[in-house]
Amino acid sequence: MSQDHLDARRRQILDGSRVCFARFGYEGATVRRLEEATGLSRGAIFHHFRDKESLFLALAEDDAVRMADVVAEQGLVQVMRDLLAEGSDHPADWLGTRLEVSRRLRTDPEFRARWAERSQQLTAATRQRLLRQREAGNLRDDVDVAVLTSFLELVLEGLVSHLAMGLPADNLGPVLDLVEESVRRHRVSAQVRPA
Amino acid sequence: MSQDHLDARRRQILDGSRVCFARFGYEGATVRRLEEATGLSRGAIFHHFRDKESLFLALAEDDAVRMADVVAEQGLVQVMRDLLAEGSDHPADWLGTRLEVSRRLRTDPEFRARWAERSQQLTAATRQRLLRQREAGNLRDDVDVAVLTSFLELVLEGLVSHLAMGLPADNLGPVLDLVEESVRRHRVSAQVRPA
Repeated sequence: MSQDHLDARRRQILDGSRVCFARFGYEGATVRRLEEATGLSRGAIFHHFRDKESLFLALAEDDAVRMADVVAEQGLVQVMRDLLAEGSDHPADWLGTRLEVSRRLRTDPEFRARWAERSQQLTAATRQRLLRQREAGNLRDDVDVAVLTSFLELVLEGLVSHLAMGLPADNLGPVLDLVEESVRRHRVSAQVRPA
Repeated sequence: MSQDHLDARRRQILDGSRVCFARFGYEGATVRRLEEATGLSRGAIFHHFRDKESLFLALAEDDAVRMADVVAEQGLVQVMRDLLAEGSDHPADWLGTRLEVSRRLRTDPEFRARWAERSQQLTAATRQRLLRQREAGNLRDDVDVAVLTSFLELVLEGLVSHLAMGLPADNLGPVLDLVEESVRRHRVSAQVRPA
């Protein structure tokens, strides 16, 4: 197979197994279900990924990179808005993986150690975006960027948990406006601050 | 037994089973483990609570009421600060129950329906507290109290999830400062707003 074919096959496995892990959870995503979901044999699947754990980690990393791309262009608050947007396929897409990552972080110390090395993309992308926003004068400059990054990540985690619990989300748009405003430069206070 | 004795017994069961549910999870908290944790026989336990589900719901409600009391006096941000405070027994105390509630809300639609009726205490207490703060002039008045309430609850949910995943929390104090400041009255902007 050519590299293009290999890449396409890898993508097919990731996309199929994403749906499967989201629907059945990590433990429930049996090899048989992964075969059904990807339309490929176990031989083909595990030619590309050493085992189920490696497949799941690759998937989680793939999703984190895609989220980081959105963050880099549009910011983490936009990722959260996408999560709330109805009719968008994108959120449902990575939300399931993210929830499984959250659950396994809670229950599986070994997974926690393996994931720790890979979980920095989103933080790094958020931080980079905020630093650029600060340079552009759009960000408040009285709070450290690390604090603003942690704040946004904490709200994202709350939103993921909120949606996972099936709680109503139709009133959360104004909450995200407030979150966004909280990290923005306050024009009025900027005026009265001594140069 | 007198009413005092009945109340004390009920408290003994709740306190023992809280530790048990937090440690083993709802499914893992077997009747045998509940007996050990409470120091009482199953007969004594289920004299007070119809079944394990009723016991868990009573416990979750009891914790929510206690949290609501702290919220009424000190606000939801203080509840979150308590959660971060090391050496405090209080957070570990209700955190386990809250996590089990979160998990079962995600995975058990029947529980979701039963819990919905009882989960309003914390929201109500937060809302009441914010309304009083607004009357006292401490709260920003350009954002609806319902939005501020949802914002604080979303951050709490993120914090609970963050701690449950075993992520480092020693840098979150300044994040909570930012959260608190985001709902407070902005003195500067108040000055320039027309009366």
